[in-house]
Amino acid sequence: MSTGKINVAVENIFPLIKKFLYSDHEIFLREIISNATDATLKLKHLTNIGEASVEYGNPVIEVKIDKDAKTLSIIDQGIGMTEEEVQKYINEVAFSGAEEFLDKYKDSAKDSGIIGHFGLGFYSAFMVARKVDIITKSFKEEPAVKWECDGSPEFTISPADKTERGTEIILHIAEDSEEFLEENRISELLTKYNKFMPVPIKFGTKEETLPLPEDAAEDAVAETKTVDNIINNPNPAWTKQPADLEEKDYNEFYRELYPMQFEEPLFHIHLNVDYPFNLTGILYFPRLGQDMNIQKDKIQLYQNQVFVTDNVEGIVPEFLTMLRGVIDSPDIPLNVSRSYLQADGAVKKISSYITRKVADKLKSLFNEDREDFEKKWNDIKVVIEYGMLSEDKFFDKADAFALYPTVDGTHYTFEELQEKIKENQTDKDGKLVILYTSNQDAQHSYIQAAKDKGYEVLLLDSPIVSHLLQKLETSKENVSFVRVDGDDVNNLIKKDEEQISKLSDEEKESLKTLLEETIADKSYTVKLEAMDSNAAPFMITQPEFMRRMKEMQATGGGGGMFGMGNMPDMYNVVINTNSELVNEILSTKTKKKQERLISQSMDLARLSQGLLKGEALTNFVKRSYEMIK
Amino acid sequence: MSTGKINVAVENIFPLIKKFLYSDHEIFLREIISNATDATLKLKHLTNIGEASVEYGNPVIEVKIDKDAKTLSIIDQGIGMTEEEVQKYINEVAFSGAEEFLDKYKDSAKDSGIIGHFGLGFYSAFMVARKVDIITKSFKEEPAVKWECDGSPEFTISPADKTERGTEIILHIAEDSEEFLEENRISELLTKYNKFMPVPIKFGTKEETLPLPEDAAEDAVAETKTVDNIINNPNPAWTKQPADLEEKDYNEFYRELYPMQFEEPLFHIHLNVDYPFNLTGILYFPRLGQDMNIQKDKIQLYQNQVFVTDNVEGIVPEFLTMLRGVIDSPDIPLNVSRSYLQADGAVKKISSYITRKVADKLKSLFNEDREDFEKKWNDIKVVIEYGMLSEDKFFDKADAFALYPTVDGTHYTFEELQEKIKENQTDKDGKLVILYTSNQDAQHSYIQAAKDKGYEVLLLDSPIVSHLLQKLETSKENVSFVRVDGDDVNNLIKKDEEQISKLSDEEKESLKTLLEETIADKSYTVKLEAMDSNAAPFMITQPEFMRRMKEMQATGGGGGMFGMGNMPDMYNVVINTNSELVNEILSTKTKKKQERLISQSMDLARLSQGLLKGEALTNFVKRSYEMIK
Repeated sequence: MSTGKINVAVENIFPLIKKFLYSDHEIFLREIISNATDATLKLKHLTNIGEASVEYGNPVIEVKIDKDAKTLSIIDQGIGMTEEEVQKYINEVAFSGAEEFLDKYKDSAKDSGIIGHFGLGFYSAFMVARKVDIITKSFKEEPAVKWECDGSPEFTISPADKTERGTEIILHIAEDSEEFLEENRISELLTKYNKFMPVPIKFGTKEETLPLPEDAAEDAVAETKTVDNIINNPNPAWTKQPADLEEKDYNEFYRELYPMQFEEPLFHIHLNVDYPFNLTGILYFPRLGQDMNIQKDKIQLYQNQVFVTDNVEGIVPEFLTMLRGVIDSPDIPLNVSRSYLQADGAVKKISSYITRKVADKLKSLFNEDREDFEKKWNDIKVVIEYGMLSEDKFFDKADAFALYPTVDGTHYTFEELQEKIKENQTDKDGKLVILYTSNQDAQHSYIQAAKDKGYEVLLLDSPIVSHLLQKLETSKENVSFVRVDGDDVNNLIKKDEEQISKLSDEEKESLKTLLEETIADKSYTVKLEAMDSNAAPFMITQPEFMRRMKEMQATGGGGGMFGMGNMPDMYNVVINTNSELVNEILSTKTKKKQERLISQSMDLARLSQGLLKGEALTNFVKRSYEMIK
Repeated sequence: MSTGKINVAVENIFPLIKKFLYSDHEIFLREIISNATDATLKLKHLTNIGEASVEYGNPVIEVKIDKDAKTLSIIDQGIGMTEEEVQKYINEVAFSGAEEFLDKYKDSAKDSGIIGHFGLGFYSAFMVARKVDIITKSFKEEPAVKWECDGSPEFTISPADKTERGTEIILHIAEDSEEFLEENRISELLTKYNKFMPVPIKFGTKEETLPLPEDAAEDAVAETKTVDNIINNPNPAWTKQPADLEEKDYNEFYRELYPMQFEEPLFHIHLNVDYPFNLTGILYFPRLGQDMNIQKDKIQLYQNQVFVTDNVEGIVPEFLTMLRGVIDSPDIPLNVSRSYLQADGAVKKISSYITRKVADKLKSLFNEDREDFEKKWNDIKVVIEYGMLSEDKFFDKADAFALYPTVDGTHYTFEELQEKIKENQTDKDGKLVILYTSNQDAQHSYIQAAKDKGYEVLLLDSPIVSHLLQKLETSKENVSFVRVDGDDVNNLIKKDEEQISKLSDEEKESLKTLLEETIADKSYTVKLEAMDSNAAPFMITQPEFMRRMKEMQATGGGGGMFGMGNMPDMYNVVINTNSELVNEILSTKTKKKQERLISQSMDLARLSQGLLKGEALTNFVKRSYEMIK
């Protein structure tokens, strides 16, 4: 038996890094600026704890393009490296300087915001450069060195004449990557990845207008001067304490995040936790309306102020991906699959922390200014209702702030609603029947009939409402939801009331036969009901259960198991046996006239339910023009 | 100046491999079975070219779980390794045996289907195993060896007593990965990744019913025997030549791909190209209907029969992601970002090859059996129309097979349509006006009016139709599309015809004033037209341009630049001055009666355009019940 050590063939690692490490080549700039930021923050830390006796000053990171030399340089004024450190940190791939530093200064460095994690970031430079130079001078009293490497594992080290502290990375851009010599391209990348990094980043210069002296003449022309163009905001709102921020600061930061967004957010939620994981961020509720296919991918994920991705699927619960804002957490594993993310314990905790914070914020908004909350309800309900459906914990918490608006504009909580309607809307079996409409226009006549009975009618028009009602019915006790056109108004809420019919049993029998003959369509079932004589003579209803199952299947999931999605719609035609019209139908002598009365009445009933279409509608309209002449 | 060689610290590479190499841990099994397949195919190749003097036989790859020992084993009967080869291929990470082999046998090995690309696949075993053993015996006359490694860079090698040729990989599954000791889980992975790999894979056994002898008694009971359970089909349809396959083979393969799919595909496209890139595959057109939010992610991507992903975004043009099937190409770079894919030259070529093949197939289907193609049109039009919109090359080719169906069920090509209608539907400015409806039911009365004039009315009801019409109008010369309710029928196609009005100018004037007073709603513009006396007395129309811009904005893109998405709908009320009703309105003495006539007529016109809703509809229905009594 022999033993040995696995050998990693460097020649083969470079192509691998190039090909696999980062699929987006543009990432190289983020990585190198992250290193420069680390180098700067390390120096800050060492000066703070007295281990570096140099002046920290106001260091910036400079990004420079030289089109003639075909180089892109990133220059920092940070900690720098001695020759020994170059050997150690640069020449040993996958040996992370940042990790060692954090290890050594564990306690004091925790909050210094150092980014680096694995030592591979620097090598991403070779994705776009045919050769990379490092010129570096340590903050220690040691000579500067220059390191050069053309992407083969061979490198050279020689003395350099750099006199200022810090590191300069010079990328000799490869032919196939010359896009990275374009100012616009680099500017775009800096805005994307480095907009909120903690050390100022300079890219070129810009003209700035000088303020006029107070005693300037009215026609004085303001002078301009050329200043450094700093592309980032090193202290974005989410890194500050909520107590230090006002409403206007949050709105300004929103505009900083979404410069093309003109509408103000409805409200924000400041996230800030450091145990058992580290997470800061600000989430905004935008105006959403009914649309659930809203643009997602609007929440940006950062790690220590470095932009990582705008895909937070798996990190933020799905119902909150409709929100906007930023989340910054060093504890979220990157470059891993979504399925892995969803199984990760830390990520699960983060997700449920965010859910809880959102619920708490909604509750306090509701408690602090209910009127305002009611005004916003229509714009936020989709998120809340979707959350209630998908997260049980959110469902429980939402009881305190989820609103049920009526067609008259009153907004009840579930408890208030129950209290308000229990007397009038409890059926003979003791079940509370909650009436709702999905469309005030289309179901107008049914709403009217329900209101005439003194019933409250909720306006529930979200696309997922059938799923939500299903969930509410199974979670709340003894409650059922029925859409106003689910039955005739007397049967929507069944009570022990004797209804007196003006018709004899024989009359009913012959009426029913006549109706069934005339209304030949098999999708309509004729039902006779003794109702108020003023109620509509004919009315079409669609039973709640089957309609809801079909709707649930149409909006995904549920109902499907019953295979109802493809069943034809079935309706009841409820005939008010106490109406004058029915009396007239029965007393009309000729069958032809009877049939005409019934057909016209059916057309009107279909109209009320939105079922009169196409040729039938055209004919109805024609007939009606004749009648009014 | 000094030079040196960059060193890769192995201790740090392992955690990296574990963390970054594959984000899905389950991939390990695919990688190891790929290696086993390579080892088998290499032997086949060597025996074929006479460099191995052993019997190739019918090798299988066996996957075995030992729950007690907590091991998962993958055993092949392939080429095996000598101790020297283990040292070379296993102990040198990122040194790919497959690559070297392909290099050596470049010309003869090209078609042998060897998968391995980088030598890292094997190490993915350490994502799920705390220890990995390799027991291997080469096809050469050399002793077997056993290699053991616990995931640290240290390994041991010792002699083994294996007597059969091949390699056995034994994974001692780590505690946090015990899911991979479950039969169901492994079975799921084998089905997902290895269902079509080229070497038979055995996982457990199954009972098989033996055929009864021909002379068996009627009540004879069939015997069963236990046979190897082979989980894959080593020769899937796409690897065969189209000439060797019949329609039923394609349909069978469709069911193999989508066992839960009961509907047959409409037709298939067999892809097969080996220059300038290598690609095989079969695409199927499923029945799609109107729905564009169809489930995508149904096309599976393979590389040399190994499943890679079901996300082909960027590889297949977007409009074809609604199709189903498989694509197999070793030339598609993996593990790279979508944006990189879209920029990659080879991938672009693949994408345009697929587009071309689809267009060619559609053209030949149209030419070979037009009747059948017309029957299928409704189920495939969404793909074709979307393709016409998004790919200019496809737009040009589609002229040969894109169909324009009329409400009467005739299907024209664009050219045929032009020919058919040019006489009757060219307006006074020489422009061809094509009429269409988006909804036969809702626009019934307007369609009727157009047909009465002898016009053809197309039925164009795809969700993206406004965008397509916009594109057609700019690509074709002197053509415009108008929806049938875009104007009154005399004005839809303006001709030089004198229309004689029964009304004098004074009568018109006073009628207009009366109408404008009564129809107070500012969204309606009153227009008087002298039409056929039998035409509808009142008619509501909505001008084409603004309606289309609004629709385009609603379905994304276009129109938005005009900011019309949020403008209120504007309508014309066209009054037929030659109708009897108008005569009656004018001759009626009391203003109150006049107003009632106008209101009822407006309600009927609104009904025809689907604009009578809510309270207005309820009141109309009530009034109408009164009238029929």
